[in-house]
Amino acid sequence: MAAYKELSAEELTELKIELEKEFEEIKDKGLNLDMSRGKPSKEQLDLSMGLMDVLRSESELVCTEGVDCRNYGVLDGITEAKQLLADMMEIPKDNIIIYGNSSLNVMYDQIARSMTHGVMGSTPWAKLDKVKFLCPVPGYDRHFAITEHFGIEMINVPMTPDGPDMDIVEKLVSEDEAIKGIWCVPKYSNPQGTTYSDETVHRFACLKPAAKDFRIYWDNAYGIHHLYEDKQDYLLEIFMECKKMGNPDLVYKFSSTSKISFPGSGIAAIGASDANLKEIRNQLKIQTIGHDKVNQLRHARFFKDIGGMVNHMKKHADIMRPKFDAVLETLERELGGLEIGSWIAPRGGYFISFDAMEGCAKAIVAKAKEAGLVMTGAGATYPYGKDPKDSNIRIAPSYPTLEEIKTAAEIFVLSVKLVSIDKLLGNL
Amino acid sequence: MAAYKELSAEELTELKIELEKEFEEIKDKGLNLDMSRGKPSKEQLDLSMGLMDVLRSESELVCTEGVDCRNYGVLDGITEAKQLLADMMEIPKDNIIIYGNSSLNVMYDQIARSMTHGVMGSTPWAKLDKVKFLCPVPGYDRHFAITEHFGIEMINVPMTPDGPDMDIVEKLVSEDEAIKGIWCVPKYSNPQGTTYSDETVHRFACLKPAAKDFRIYWDNAYGIHHLYEDKQDYLLEIFMECKKMGNPDLVYKFSSTSKISFPGSGIAAIGASDANLKEIRNQLKIQTIGHDKVNQLRHARFFKDIGGMVNHMKKHADIMRPKFDAVLETLERELGGLEIGSWIAPRGGYFISFDAMEGCAKAIVAKAKEAGLVMTGAGATYPYGKDPKDSNIRIAPSYPTLEEIKTAAEIFVLSVKLVSIDKLLGNL
Repeated sequence: MAAYKELSAEELTELKIELEKEFEEIKDKGLNLDMSRGKPSKEQLDLSMGLMDVLRSESELVCTEGVDCRNYGVLDGITEAKQLLADMMEIPKDNIIIYGNSSLNVMYDQIARSMTHGVMGSTPWAKLDKVKFLCPVPGYDRHFAITEHFGIEMINVPMTPDGPDMDIVEKLVSEDEAIKGIWCVPKYSNPQGTTYSDETVHRFACLKPAAKDFRIYWDNAYGIHHLYEDKQDYLLEIFMECKKMGNPDLVYKFSSTSKISFPGSGIAAIGASDANLKEIRNQLKIQTIGHDKVNQLRHARFFKDIGGMVNHMKKHADIMRPKFDAVLETLERELGGLEIGSWIAPRGGYFISFDAMEGCAKAIVAKAKEAGLVMTGAGATYPYGKDPKDSNIRIAPSYPTLEEIKTAAEIFVLSVKLVSIDKLLGNL
Repeated sequence: MAAYKELSAEELTELKIELEKEFEEIKDKGLNLDMSRGKPSKEQLDLSMGLMDVLRSESELVCTEGVDCRNYGVLDGITEAKQLLADMMEIPKDNIIIYGNSSLNVMYDQIARSMTHGVMGSTPWAKLDKVKFLCPVPGYDRHFAITEHFGIEMINVPMTPDGPDMDIVEKLVSEDEAIKGIWCVPKYSNPQGTTYSDETVHRFACLKPAAKDFRIYWDNAYGIHHLYEDKQDYLLEIFMECKKMGNPDLVYKFSSTSKISFPGSGIAAIGASDANLKEIRNQLKIQTIGHDKVNQLRHARFFKDIGGMVNHMKKHADIMRPKFDAVLETLERELGGLEIGSWIAPRGGYFISFDAMEGCAKAIVAKAKEAGLVMTGAGATYPYGKDPKDSNIRIAPSYPTLEEIKTAAEIFVLSVKLVSIDKLLGNL
């Protein structure tokens, strides 16, 4: 099919009538589909039911240090959970602290502590006139929500196929002392599925920030969340790279088992240098006596080791892959060559990022909703919810069934076509 | 036996030689006993092993709202957990938010949020020159650690048999806008086991603070932690009392199941007015997608309802009571009439509070340690670890076995006697 922009107004109008008929037919089905969040499906949750069976007797609740996991204590996590998550995060076991069920909460707490207490002796951010964060865009809305909540000014940095535009990052970070951090989802990024190149990671490790309390907030949420066994991305490990470059304190790594075991009941962790962790422990011991060790032990016993976890992720991939393939196949079949949108086929993670023609994203999401399909709100992938081009839409194919995904993809492409025609006809 | 102060120097010296011999004999046993923290014993933990059995199949993991508890979502807790903890906290189900495993963490987070965002529109505390908290003393060291961590000035308020001295509380709170809160453990208080009188609670509810963002931090940690079935304290419910007095927003109630189910893996909650909870939810949704719902459901299914929980606490009491009785019996038998210390026999909670002669507490704790008995550090029950009279010692009889407790109590009274003699002889 020819690109829409090559069509005459008459041709577009004719096409629109045809597509609207199709759309009305789907709309009449009264569907209720949700592709808005990166939420695992029931089938994926069922993979981890073994978690409910591994700890039954009193003796099974004692961890390798001989600690009764039911009782108080062990501030930064039991050894076997540390080992499992350290391997998952590709860092030494001593460079990790295990938290509760949410890595978002861990990130929030790091920012909150920096606000009230600064970072390793720096002025508490709450006492500064201005604090800024760099935000590679498009990115993860919940990251942006944290920085917005604390009144931190967010600066967009464009993503490239190799990760954030490092020329911009280097320049801004080295010049502006108010810039205290950058949000990164370095592997199978949210929403584009981009994995930062080795050079990008290396350049991160070499940053010379004007602010001594600048940190890279490295949210490796999809580190082992591949879609294909034969096509996988590899990410240079940043903590070691920072250490090599003489910047061991530059990065906080975050991760969790939320999309590996149970999203609501996993375990989360931070990985960082000895000096960073020392400061964090000093605060953490005021905040809690310790996190849920029974759940830590449950995870360690269920997965056994990182090998077990990697095998487990293959089962997730087997469920996710057909859903991604269905969306991608529909996009290719229905939108290929029309020049009204572009997308990236990711090799892992939870999202497909779609870029519509400028000024069309909000209208497409609204259109899809008319037919019962909920997408992530347009703009959500940008700080303050403001996509300057109103172009990016995040597609999250994990939660619905494969059958539903197929229908959802059809609604989506129809919505894209209809809105794009309106745009080209000057009706938007 | 006569009061020590009635004895001559010779008599005291003679007695000391005798007691020192006894002390050396115990010391030679090379014991290793711990009465330092309010930590439940293994026997108590075993009471809750049913928690590990209640959720086995996928269908059992769906809560009453039909939500799959394994997945993301439900920010403020599932209905059945809310009902259980609301009943435990004696507040309406809609006035509760369920958190993770630690009420200390909940309290920390309230203070942290107030530092960065203020309370219901007030100036963030981090922007103020001075923030103060009232601290009934003796009190809970971890409360004091939170306020100290945030640079909040702590003002001691003496405890009376009816709770904090309300004349002082009313005066200070109404006069000083810098005073933003007061720490309270209102029932079976830590460490004295005091329960606030109805009048005290009523006067709390009638407070007219100079600071609009003043809150009562009501940590009802031992609400159903009775020792005796026939002798129980009753605490007037403060949230309703505040509401009646036209001050619905005045109090934050905190509680958890830490000393009911598993200390490291319980569920915690805050109870407060609609307006307070609205503000808290607005922040909480930035901090996390939700707490561990599987663990919430586990607790709801195991205890069934508040009746089940109350019955469960009788089993705890059966384990705790003999330990408390053993300590109290030893104190009475060995120190009764000597006028070298006083103590309160509590009806619940986790502690016995002992007041030594002035200037003796640190020395007694050090002496006990010589014989292998670890007590809570003297001074810990006061802000900044400074007991102005160096007199208060917290005894925590829960963790050791009954046999160990008996020995520990003997070491303790011997230490008290020896240090008191030194004091009277002018050797301290």
